[in-house]
Amino acid sequence: MYEKWMKTAISLAEAAQGQTSPNPAVGSVVVKDGRVVGMGAHLKPGEAHAEVHALHMAGHHAEGATIYVTLEPCSHYGKTPPCADLIIEKKVKKVVIGSTDPNPLVSGQGIKKLMDAGIEVVTGVCQSETDALNEYFFYAMKHKKPFVTLKTAMSLDGKTATNSGHSQWVTGPEAREDVHRDRHLHDAILVGVNTVKYDDPSLTVRLQGGGVSPARVILDTQLSIPVHSKLLHDAESAVHIICGKNADREFEENLNQLKNVSVHRMEEDAIQIQSVLSYLFTLGIHSVYVEGGSEIHASFINSNAVNRFVTYIAPKIITGQRAKGVIGGTGIEHMDEAFNMIIQHTSMIGTDLKIISIPKGDE
Amino acid sequence: MYEKWMKTAISLAEAAQGQTSPNPAVGSVVVKDGRVVGMGAHLKPGEAHAEVHALHMAGHHAEGATIYVTLEPCSHYGKTPPCADLIIEKKVKKVVIGSTDPNPLVSGQGIKKLMDAGIEVVTGVCQSETDALNEYFFYAMKHKKPFVTLKTAMSLDGKTATNSGHSQWVTGPEAREDVHRDRHLHDAILVGVNTVKYDDPSLTVRLQGGGVSPARVILDTQLSIPVHSKLLHDAESAVHIICGKNADREFEENLNQLKNVSVHRMEEDAIQIQSVLSYLFTLGIHSVYVEGGSEIHASFINSNAVNRFVTYIAPKIITGQRAKGVIGGTGIEHMDEAFNMIIQHTSMIGTDLKIISIPKGDE
Repeated sequence: MYEKWMKTAISLAEAAQGQTSPNPAVGSVVVKDGRVVGMGAHLKPGEAHAEVHALHMAGHHAEGATIYVTLEPCSHYGKTPPCADLIIEKKVKKVVIGSTDPNPLVSGQGIKKLMDAGIEVVTGVCQSETDALNEYFFYAMKHKKPFVTLKTAMSLDGKTATNSGHSQWVTGPEAREDVHRDRHLHDAILVGVNTVKYDDPSLTVRLQGGGVSPARVILDTQLSIPVHSKLLHDAESAVHIICGKNADREFEENLNQLKNVSVHRMEEDAIQIQSVLSYLFTLGIHSVYVEGGSEIHASFINSNAVNRFVTYIAPKIITGQRAKGVIGGTGIEHMDEAFNMIIQHTSMIGTDLKIISIPKGDE
Repeated sequence: MYEKWMKTAISLAEAAQGQTSPNPAVGSVVVKDGRVVGMGAHLKPGEAHAEVHALHMAGHHAEGATIYVTLEPCSHYGKTPPCADLIIEKKVKKVVIGSTDPNPLVSGQGIKKLMDAGIEVVTGVCQSETDALNEYFFYAMKHKKPFVTLKTAMSLDGKTATNSGHSQWVTGPEAREDVHRDRHLHDAILVGVNTVKYDDPSLTVRLQGGGVSPARVILDTQLSIPVHSKLLHDAESAVHIICGKNADREFEENLNQLKNVSVHRMEEDAIQIQSVLSYLFTLGIHSVYVEGGSEIHASFINSNAVNRFVTYIAPKIITGQRAKGVIGGTGIEHMDEAFNMIIQHTSMIGTDLKIISIPKGDE
């Protein structure tokens, strides 16, 4: 009986996915006498939580009502007062929860506060769906580093460009739109400096219905990013440039002058992927969408830093023994050394095939 | 009402698929008063046609019965007498046919003969399924060359071997078994001589339930095949070696001494794929399964000689910028020159993904 309204709360949260980070997406519904009297979702970090919106809409109907919320109400003072207190104050009778909070600051404490106040609490309703709503947030809270999706696009014969290096476009417009949807759902897009040099990309979200552009992270060991690169000047979202210990300090200062641009210097000569991820977590980045090039991909794979591998396969055959593949690096000797994956999901996106796989052992 | 018994006839034909070439697979059922009184399939070239088996089983019950047959009964003397004559002789009342015969020697003539004898004839029942039974045969009859399936196997990052060339195995045991099923359904397996040199393969069908080994075709411009290669001596099925105009004549004679081995010399220095296909058709080969290597693949693609492209994708990431891909060749300049395909079917075979695609325009 709880599932119906929890699914409504999940729909509300889904509508706000990708625009709440570093907070999780949360939805809430208040029900009294079998009728919805309030609904809400958390829409933007720093603004009201889902329960606050829903209880505000419910007004005096909240008294004696049941509130459904996809994630355990918070019990601590963050940027807003604790939702558990508001629920108690409004004399809500019952609280139905999807997931408990993975954040050690609040996990279980919200539930305890509510029960101590004599409110009936039901947990774990539609939990696999409410967990999935905030997969990246949950992962980041647990591991203290962002969830990493690595995206590649190749032909049926495994190539991502022609012999001469021409690469626009491998996939069709529907798959490229799908990439923009996935960008929107991540907190940051990450590329190597060579991708910036060769393609001068914007790395923004361009969706018909709008969308939030994630931060852009550039791995640039020597700080060789061209100063006129588009993304340094568009002020669409934050740009984080990661460089090695010995990169030019004067250029670093110049880059830091640019609006939205900040340079972060690593402690090592070469950029260590796991150090990058730890640093990004401190910025509140809970998910990273890696988009090339092939050497960056190899670094992530070789660092065991990929949580999800997305492969778009375009219905074309490019041919050419020297045409470029999607993952570079020095490679392996024996087939047993290959990184084992599990194919989790396949779907057609327009005329292209999308394959989602995860490292074997992560399932 | 005809569909039920036609589907039975189709099942009978399916059981014999892959063992009737150069003849088509055909099934037949004789029905009288709502009961099956005879059933049969063509089992082996040179032996009885499906109708003959079915009518033999029916005996005197054939009189006044309805015979279902997946392919138009023949009207000419081949290795066996015309089936149309036997149907008339047995006083069958009605003939229900799936496909008409694509062979110009018999097409429509069987139907005419039956109707001239006063027998009711119904055609086109379950035709898309009866056509599919003999896709290769129909294609070969129409185009005077065999249907070509090109098979590749690669990792999620498009590689078929490691940097050092190690390639056993990319795919899992279920996919390798699937390859043996597909081999069985083709009349010939084709590889380049380098594949014979490096892998010394048997290229036979090894299936748990048995299966027919197709002919083996080796493209070997210079006649450089190692004389101790396994497939030259196993006598499992015919071996056709295709060489260029200037290949060594003494070695050709030696090879021709071997049981089941025959060398065919082309009129050109270099082997032309379309000439090879025309030659194979004269041998009664209606379908070819191309299994490598990557340069042979490129030749077939560049000759527009591929009717079906099968890609197995193994759930592993091999990495390595120089690790080998599935299709070689000199490649193309601009993405617009790529060969456009349509992804027709995808399925999981064990833990691997199988993608079937066809050239755009062939759908």
